[in-house]
Amino acid sequence: MELWYTEEQTGGLRFSCQVKQALATVRTPYQHLAVLDTETFGPMLVLDGMVMTTMADEFIYHEMIAHPALFTHPSPERVAVIGGGDGGAIREVLKHPQVKKAVLAEIDPEVIHYSRRFLPEIAGALDDPRVEIHIGDGFAFLQSCKGEFDVVLVDSTEPVGAAAALFSREFYETVFSALKADGLVVAQSESPFFNKEILAGVYRDLGALFPWVGTYLASIPTYPGGLWSFTLAAKGSPPLDRQRLPQAGFTTKYYTPELHRSAFVLPGFVQELLDQ
Amino acid sequence: MELWYTEEQTGGLRFSCQVKQALATVRTPYQHLAVLDTETFGPMLVLDGMVMTTMADEFIYHEMIAHPALFTHPSPERVAVIGGGDGGAIREVLKHPQVKKAVLAEIDPEVIHYSRRFLPEIAGALDDPRVEIHIGDGFAFLQSCKGEFDVVLVDSTEPVGAAAALFSREFYETVFSALKADGLVVAQSESPFFNKEILAGVYRDLGALFPWVGTYLASIPTYPGGLWSFTLAAKGSPPLDRQRLPQAGFTTKYYTPELHRSAFVLPGFVQELLDQ
Repeated sequence: MELWYTEEQTGGLRFSCQVKQALATVRTPYQHLAVLDTETFGPMLVLDGMVMTTMADEFIYHEMIAHPALFTHPSPERVAVIGGGDGGAIREVLKHPQVKKAVLAEIDPEVIHYSRRFLPEIAGALDDPRVEIHIGDGFAFLQSCKGEFDVVLVDSTEPVGAAAALFSREFYETVFSALKADGLVVAQSESPFFNKEILAGVYRDLGALFPWVGTYLASIPTYPGGLWSFTLAAKGSPPLDRQRLPQAGFTTKYYTPELHRSAFVLPGFVQELLDQ
Repeated sequence: MELWYTEEQTGGLRFSCQVKQALATVRTPYQHLAVLDTETFGPMLVLDGMVMTTMADEFIYHEMIAHPALFTHPSPERVAVIGGGDGGAIREVLKHPQVKKAVLAEIDPEVIHYSRRFLPEIAGALDDPRVEIHIGDGFAFLQSCKGEFDVVLVDSTEPVGAAAALFSREFYETVFSALKADGLVVAQSESPFFNKEILAGVYRDLGALFPWVGTYLASIPTYPGGLWSFTLAAKGSPPLDRQRLPQAGFTTKYYTPELHRSAFVLPGFVQELLDQ
């Protein structure tokens, strides 16, 4: 018998992975959650029929949502991750010795539970004493924070269901207020091939609030089209002019100090989308 | 009825596209050839069960195999494309007014025939008077050329069947001889995710012959993993120090003068693969 996971990534396009074993398939109060052990990518977390992360390529997404902002802020002491219950973004955040407190605001505790159980290499960092976990709505959580964070990472799912609010103008205003005066926010902003309007919307809406906004890209083979966008916005001075370098012993597999800048150099069609 | 094209991109990983119409499916003396009109990407050329190009994303591969070398060479007058019977690389080459002669060496005339018929936006440039088409083995063709070309583009399929020879040391020696003293070669060098050994081999073998070698990347959604590598080698001075800029009216959708350099900035795991 062969077992395959198939995802309709966009109309008329499917991505299929052979599955060695379905480790978990449950319906939580918020979404359908599966952990599948795949032939090609190892254990894979799937939420509402969309690949969130896999053991083989998780380093790309998690390094790239965290390090461009963390290596830009002069002293990232307090960091919030909205969503991201698998713990991967938190793990990368904690690599920065400046970080004193890393808050995870995840609405669905089952994501954390199953990640800890089946993806310990990703979720293990959630046990670090610097981590504070808030189970609940990330939007509501941030509303209670004023000028509190140096960096906020919006590690959301697609803008459907509970995550839709995390793509709204109101949410970005809340993030703005929750940041300190020189704070930075990064939001995952979807595929530049298949979610052009979402990406353009995130860029436009963050740019309307923050004095500086920039989109950067990373190649993630298990995401639609294999290319993903992140959008960084800054309350203070332009981020690309103040890049810090990793200290000795800081290890990454995708992010490099050279890539920090070049990831912001966009293909023509992506730049054009943002310039509209 | 729904018709789907499914490709096993690597073990345990499949890519499927919904097909509106199978425009052609033939067996040529060299390979199986199909042109499928797909829902998501429009007309798609498939050789031996591997997507070669689609109307929706062909601009990426064709711009990126051509322009980094063409905008590096001070005066690219004579250019050869080995393989690439769809004509897309030739079309990009001909955008450079310096080009006086563009030779296409394609082993399978059916690729040219079906591309002209069903992909005229790609193949149309083959009718340009500066183009010379050689039907036959590209390796043998280049052996007859000594110090003749400014730029050679190796636009091959995967290293199986007829294309396997285009990934050999002997072939690269032939390219070296066919180039002028300051000539450049670019070879498509497969996926950095799924064909690590092929990429490392191309980089190593070109680097053993040419004084300068560098790998760059482009995001191509219909190729395995969505990320593709190209390896450029130079007989003369280092290419990245002598980038020319596009003249007014030169249009591209992916390549930009900024991307010319940043495409060579590799993710850590790719750089590490090449450094081994």
